[in-house]
Amino acid sequence: MNRQITLASRPVGYPKESDFNVVEVPIPKPEDGQVLVKTIYLSVDPYMRGRINAAKSYAANVEIDEVMVGGGIAQVVESRHPNFRIGDIVNASIGWQEYGATAGDGLRKIDPTIAPISTGAGILGMPGLTAYFGLLEIGQLQELETVFVSGAAGAVGSVVGQIAKIKGCRVVGSAGTDEKVDYVVDELGFDAAFNYKKVSDYHTELQKLLPDGIDVYFDNVGGQITDAVFPNLRIKGRVVICGQISQYNLEKPETGPRFLWHMITKRARIEGFLVSEYADRHAKALVEMAEWLQQGKLKYHETIEEGGIESAPAAFISMLKGGNIGKQLVRIADID
Amino acid sequence: MNRQITLASRPVGYPKESDFNVVEVPIPKPEDGQVLVKTIYLSVDPYMRGRINAAKSYAANVEIDEVMVGGGIAQVVESRHPNFRIGDIVNASIGWQEYGATAGDGLRKIDPTIAPISTGAGILGMPGLTAYFGLLEIGQLQELETVFVSGAAGAVGSVVGQIAKIKGCRVVGSAGTDEKVDYVVDELGFDAAFNYKKVSDYHTELQKLLPDGIDVYFDNVGGQITDAVFPNLRIKGRVVICGQISQYNLEKPETGPRFLWHMITKRARIEGFLVSEYADRHAKALVEMAEWLQQGKLKYHETIEEGGIESAPAAFISMLKGGNIGKQLVRIADID
Repeated sequence: MNRQITLASRPVGYPKESDFNVVEVPIPKPEDGQVLVKTIYLSVDPYMRGRINAAKSYAANVEIDEVMVGGGIAQVVESRHPNFRIGDIVNASIGWQEYGATAGDGLRKIDPTIAPISTGAGILGMPGLTAYFGLLEIGQLQELETVFVSGAAGAVGSVVGQIAKIKGCRVVGSAGTDEKVDYVVDELGFDAAFNYKKVSDYHTELQKLLPDGIDVYFDNVGGQITDAVFPNLRIKGRVVICGQISQYNLEKPETGPRFLWHMITKRARIEGFLVSEYADRHAKALVEMAEWLQQGKLKYHETIEEGGIESAPAAFISMLKGGNIGKQLVRIADID
Repeated sequence: MNRQITLASRPVGYPKESDFNVVEVPIPKPEDGQVLVKTIYLSVDPYMRGRINAAKSYAANVEIDEVMVGGGIAQVVESRHPNFRIGDIVNASIGWQEYGATAGDGLRKIDPTIAPISTGAGILGMPGLTAYFGLLEIGQLQELETVFVSGAAGAVGSVVGQIAKIKGCRVVGSAGTDEKVDYVVDELGFDAAFNYKKVSDYHTELQKLLPDGIDVYFDNVGGQITDAVFPNLRIKGRVVICGQISQYNLEKPETGPRFLWHMITKRARIEGFLVSEYADRHAKALVEMAEWLQQGKLKYHETIEEGGIESAPAAFISMLKGGNIGKQLVRIADID
């Protein structure tokens, strides 16, 4: 049998475990051109919070009783596609379930000799690519610039800061625990970081840590930290809107200070993006990222929930509340 | 003698006439390389409101008892620069005064055979160039796109809408009186416009007038009209931040809804700019604008205060409150 997590009800505020159901269905049969995969690591990501709202986001939302959207690292257990053999490791978007039949065309194979396969859902997967294209393409980061990244210890932010260091920039981050602050400074090489739960005046903190201002702000969180960035932007500063996780679980939408006039005085730019826009360049970027990883220029951490598919909702909720350092995964099965 | 308008006190909220003084000083003598000019039309512009705050904007602020920043269309009455002769009409930044000595280098001559010289401070001057570069360079407007412009009847907004029509786009504007709404639709050829003082739900109004969404929003005003744009942006929409006049005269800063998450779902861009960034391309753009004007593709309106230099503060305040249609000028003297 195949266990799935379906959406039981639309969350108001933070999701609760009762917003999800565990359902058992038969394991599907792959059709011609498909492969049957079993999930090894399920990925839970902030974007999924937007997909369980009633309001349409950039992609179709999950309906009640539908399988939760997502995917992760999976292994081929049956193949009806010429490019895949039993045992292959792939990055598959089959939703939150133990088994799934999915088209082989477009399925990305993971090379287990480069790095642990879990990295295919993290630093060598969607979060890593999000950091890469957000910082370098949307942020147009140049050598010797200054970078501030919020959500610095997360799956994306931790890579953003490290790529900025590779590019010779000064990097400051914000995160929600002292442990995370120590991690990004001591382990990842950020120049400085602060615990936003212990600092009340973000504006002054940014002035202190980035006295010459911010060239590129990589925003994973939104809200009051982001408010404090605009007065601290440098001329021609860029604000990369990757996520707004502080806003996703509010029961009532927040208001905040108006800041668009800063965009004039700073001749600055704010831009949002989706990593899927760069799909034709993902493979090349992953080669570069894998090199950095092998050279020790990129490091990563994973927070792995070991409770199987039924623990996915708890892992998802924990991640939304900042319980993870680096990539949050759920281990579903062992590799055969 | 030379009459000047100086800053008497920093305004709180809307400026008052008592925030300005009229001062008489001797007419200055031009030095080598300078010309002495007399002001014909003084220009009053929204950006000047930012220059009389205590807080530093993108340029040095006017100090108390200093001559107000600005300029306009002036005539050379004495020349110690080889390129200028007595009688030449120029665009000069000598501040709010009747006479000024200014460097001839970089001074722009106005050709009175192309159009009335007043246009050199309006559609063929800084406001026209602001519309041109903001819409085409920052907005990257493409044919057949949809454009919304706030402050549509102002010196910049009225040109934005007309250039967008030249480029084959659908154009909607907002303005603060029925007369302005009629002007931009009936005279300037906007596809639609609304009086924001008579509409309470801007979001619904925009959905009605631009049912397929907004590709380029040219923002002159900020505030609640701008709030309503973000949910109505199209994928890859661009928001050109030119002005935020609704915010300049607030005694207490406003708050507003947070909207940055729309930038992700729409992969959209917000960008501010100053027309001075394109200084090396102004001359070429003005040739194109003058052609459009002579072909009847661009029209303009001027609101001219006839009360001389002492009426400049009143004209400035009136412009900040939306009393003008098109470019607000103050007539200071006749051409010799």
